[in-house]
Amino acid sequence: MGHIEERLTHLGLTLPPEVQPPPGVVLPFVFVNVQGDRVVVSGHGPQSADGPLAPQFGQVGRDVSLDEAVESAHLAALSMLGSLQRELGTLDRITSWVRVFGMVNSAPDFDQQPTVINGFSDLILDVFGPEVGRHARSAVGMASLPFGIPVEVEAEVSIRVINRGPQS
Amino acid sequence: MGHIEERLTHLGLTLPPEVQPPPGVVLPFVFVNVQGDRVVVSGHGPQSADGPLAPQFGQVGRDVSLDEAVESAHLAALSMLGSLQRELGTLDRITSWVRVFGMVNSAPDFDQQPTVINGFSDLILDVFGPEVGRHARSAVGMASLPFGIPVEVEAEVSIRVINRGPQS
Amino acid sequence: MGHIEERLTHLGLTLPPEVQPPPGVVLPFVFVNVQGDRVVVSGHGPQSADGPLAPQFGQVGRDVSLDEAVESAHLAALSMLGSLQRELGTLDRITSWVRVFGMVNSAPDFDQQPTVINGFSDLILDVFGPEVGRHARSAVGMASLPFGIPVEVEAEVSIRVINRGPQS
Repeated sequence: MGHIEERLTHLGLTLPPEVQPPPGVVLPFVFVNVQGDRVVVSGHGPQSADGPLAPQFGQVGRDVSLDEAVESAHLAALSMLGSLQRELGTLDRITSWVRVFGMVNSAPDFDQQPTVINGFSDLILDVFGPEVGRHARSAVGMASLPFGIPVEVEAEVSIRVINRGPQS
Repeated sequence: MGHIEERLTHLGLTLPPEVQPPPGVVLPFVFVNVQGDRVVVSGHGPQSADGPLAPQFGQVGRDVSLDEAVESAHLAALSMLGSLQRELGTLDRITSWVRVFGMVNSAPDFDQQPTVINGFSDLILDVFGPEVGRHARSAVGMASLPFGIPVEVEAEVSIRVINRGPQS
Repeated sequence: MGHIEERLTHLGLTLPPEVQPPPGVVLPFVFVNVQGDRVVVSGHGPQSADGPLAPQFGQVGRDVSLDEAVESAHLAALSMLGSLQRELGTLDRITSWVRVFGMVNSAPDFDQQPTVINGFSDLILDVFGPEVGRHARSAVGMASLPFGIPVEVEAEVSIRVINRGPQS
């Protein structure tokens, strides 16, 4: 078990399994795309611990409260860490968080997107520490998000490239 | 003619010429920005085969149907391939699709952005195959898009760098 | 003083100090994230010359006019240049602008995002010239933005890496 995985256990955090899209929905893309030492991560929403999307849906500031939205961003971070762990083997390979793009399904006059996406950033900083977890960020308001999820976060991280030797 | 260009011909697909912005609009940026082996691609909307924006305008879920939006995403892919071909010489230089950011001009309760952007992803996978065409993706709902286009897609691809020799 | 700094002075432009977020708001991220020769820049909004957010708030096309929005994009560019200068020491280290993602807080039927974000692009091109200033761009409409700012711009630039010698 890696150091980051130990840290997650210490914090009482569990990563969900691969997201199950709603019935009939085809998602013809990968959640994590490794390009050398760059890792481009698709938009992730909040997942329940057992796989499906978390049951909180709608626009923040209309259907979803600020506190619920912060929790949704926290769950989106766990969803993303789950995808990264499955792709990378261990989260210890992440050498730096690069970019976080936090999208909040927003009622027209809701303007506290930074507070919402702090639910994502705070978890990343808590788990990875201030050096590795350090990231650039935008937190902005969308007209709507897939399936009515309240928060979606896209990201980029850098990783240690594993030398697989001359055969590969 | 490159292999990808042959594949397009085989599929009966034609790439449009450079987009003509509406009269009076100045677009002081490049549609394709090559940085070494990275290619950052500006947002592309649906184009008609002869150059101007396709005649479908408005919010998806209000003015534009789901099927029309999927077709708009398909046309945005052809527009982007046209820009890439003009800049790169041949689409065969693309070694991998990296990131697709699909933006749907969405009525507040429209939440099927993934189905819309599948019109883009499916074309890329069909033309480039599952290895080169593999990409990370977000598909999200915007309050509005330039000129009222229903779909806009931004992307990044990787390319084979042509060694121009010691003179260049 | 660098060449770009001289150019700014020649144009009568002054860069604002670090942005002061509204009281009680914590922003747990960095405005500029250097990764080798890549620099990922967080979303920047319009700042007043002395630090706080500029006093223009609301949706463009409803609360904010087109001209005011263009000026907001101009101020967002100055804000971003201020952040880059503090992080890089001098703006002369920028070798190319790579990507500009321009977000406009838009009333549902406002569709002139390109004209708004030209307030950003025109300044970059004026200061850095057509080669270094050349960038890919998207200019799109958001449902809302933090604190009600009318414009937010995220970007990526490339820089000259300073060799700090064998000790570092």
